[in-house]
Amino acid sequence: MRVGFIGLGTMGAPMARRLLEAGHDVVVHNRTREREEPLAALGAGRAASPRECAAGREVVFTMVSDTPDLEQVVLGETGAVHGLERGAVLVDMSTVSPAATRRIADELRGRGVAMLDAPVSGGSEGAQKGTLSIMVGGPAEALERVRPLLEVLGRTITHVGDSGAGQVAKAVNQVIIAGTYASVAEGMALAMKAGVDVDALLRALAGGAAQSWVLENRARNMLTGEYPLGFRTRLHRKDLGIALAEARERGVSMPVAAYVEQLEAGLVGRGYGDEDVSNVARVVRELAGIDP
Amino acid sequence: MRVGFIGLGTMGAPMARRLLEAGHDVVVHNRTREREEPLAALGAGRAASPRECAAGREVVFTMVSDTPDLEQVVLGETGAVHGLERGAVLVDMSTVSPAATRRIADELRGRGVAMLDAPVSGGSEGAQKGTLSIMVGGPAEALERVRPLLEVLGRTITHVGDSGAGQVAKAVNQVIIAGTYASVAEGMALAMKAGVDVDALLRALAGGAAQSWVLENRARNMLTGEYPLGFRTRLHRKDLGIALAEARERGVSMPVAAYVEQLEAGLVGRGYGDEDVSNVARVVRELAGIDP
Repeated sequence: MRVGFIGLGTMGAPMARRLLEAGHDVVVHNRTREREEPLAALGAGRAASPRECAAGREVVFTMVSDTPDLEQVVLGETGAVHGLERGAVLVDMSTVSPAATRRIADELRGRGVAMLDAPVSGGSEGAQKGTLSIMVGGPAEALERVRPLLEVLGRTITHVGDSGAGQVAKAVNQVIIAGTYASVAEGMALAMKAGVDVDALLRALAGGAAQSWVLENRARNMLTGEYPLGFRTRLHRKDLGIALAEARERGVSMPVAAYVEQLEAGLVGRGYGDEDVSNVARVVRELAGIDP
Repeated sequence: MRVGFIGLGTMGAPMARRLLEAGHDVVVHNRTREREEPLAALGAGRAASPRECAAGREVVFTMVSDTPDLEQVVLGETGAVHGLERGAVLVDMSTVSPAATRRIADELRGRGVAMLDAPVSGGSEGAQKGTLSIMVGGPAEALERVRPLLEVLGRTITHVGDSGAGQVAKAVNQVIIAGTYASVAEGMALAMKAGVDVDALLRALAGGAAQSWVLENRARNMLTGEYPLGFRTRLHRKDLGIALAEARERGVSMPVAAYVEQLEAGLVGRGYGDEDVSNVARVVRELAGIDP
């Protein structure tokens, strides 16, 4: 298919590469233009703007950092909207505001362009290996048209509802993770200060009702006080901000998520934003007087 | 072995029965004496008091509701301490205060009796099937002596440290569960109010970083607003109270656990204490204006 790909960061670059290697005709664009070069070396076309990148393409992907970036590359002066043809599909794989997503989708629909919100989980490793989990909101028929492309990028592709629903699903994912991290951190701090054999404890907890991906994969960071990536704290904080804004708009109170967002905001301000999100335990350990 | 078993509630009765059926010589005692009858019918001896139940026994089990009950049946006027012989082992399988456990263990040690704290997870089904997870604190050599009995009761038996460490491990289990329940409830409330396809959402979340036993086994209760047992809210609240008291004594702050304990305390006061602990979602749904 004729594909445009806008946003070649840690996630976008390997995704564009996979589409190229799967035999698609790919044109790429990135704000910092040098990032296009490795993909051009693999055969991608280069476009000077999102508009140019979208022109004549059947499907245009966006993978950017935050909501204002998405608004800029889609609706801005040289945005994709000015290049997209009627019948094309815009697939936004960024994690951004569901409300902004619905607004952009409305704007594009008026021009005959379908939009899918398709945020992912699985990190840069998942992007490289094509094993992402992709949560999709928007028209089902548009999803069916782009599914062969998404199958190059992800292992599970789940249609969760109308426009914005993919972003809400991603927000729910981040909300659940937030409380799980905080409570595993509280439990580990108590175990450490009470002098429990933590290795034995983790074995004992593994098969029961306390079991979780976070417990299995991140409790050890919290015990050693080292937080290798993983998933960056500043990105998780950004995602919780999106979730809390959506909750506010929907009339939902999420005090646990709000508390964890505050812990993470403090960590980001102190320069720990590029550590793994398990460093929520850093604050819990400090509150308990455990040496860093 | 010559075994005494004190406390024949929902958990204790099937545990005593399993020991009996495994061929041990079991004498039982329960405050409400009628509860002894079904076990007597299977061949158990009956004792009129904890003291009598402990007399001449190599190992005495206790399985009672809370810390004051344990203090009563062990140290009270007709308590087990007055019957226990030097060299015997007391195995407390209740979920009670780690600090009280350490005090009772000290008292018994002075009389030549070893105490193990061995709280369990796995519920009444685990007690019936002998598939409990048992977290053990106390002297390793005492554990080795009673291990054949514990293997009749549980599938995993983990020594986690000195006296009280088993209770701390159980407390950590309940702390981790608390935050996981609350954050899954927040996530589900957001998904419902935003109109996401929740079945698809649960499939999308299943394999990722939000995965947990709670998400897999209890998210559906939170979506339907029905909370069949499971594990009673009033017992989980009691356990969180124990965890928070231990945290206070150790100098550990656990705001997420404290918040969930308050949600549960309100639910217990409103008459929902015998529903499954997933009814934490009842409050989260109310906060979001979702009909019960």
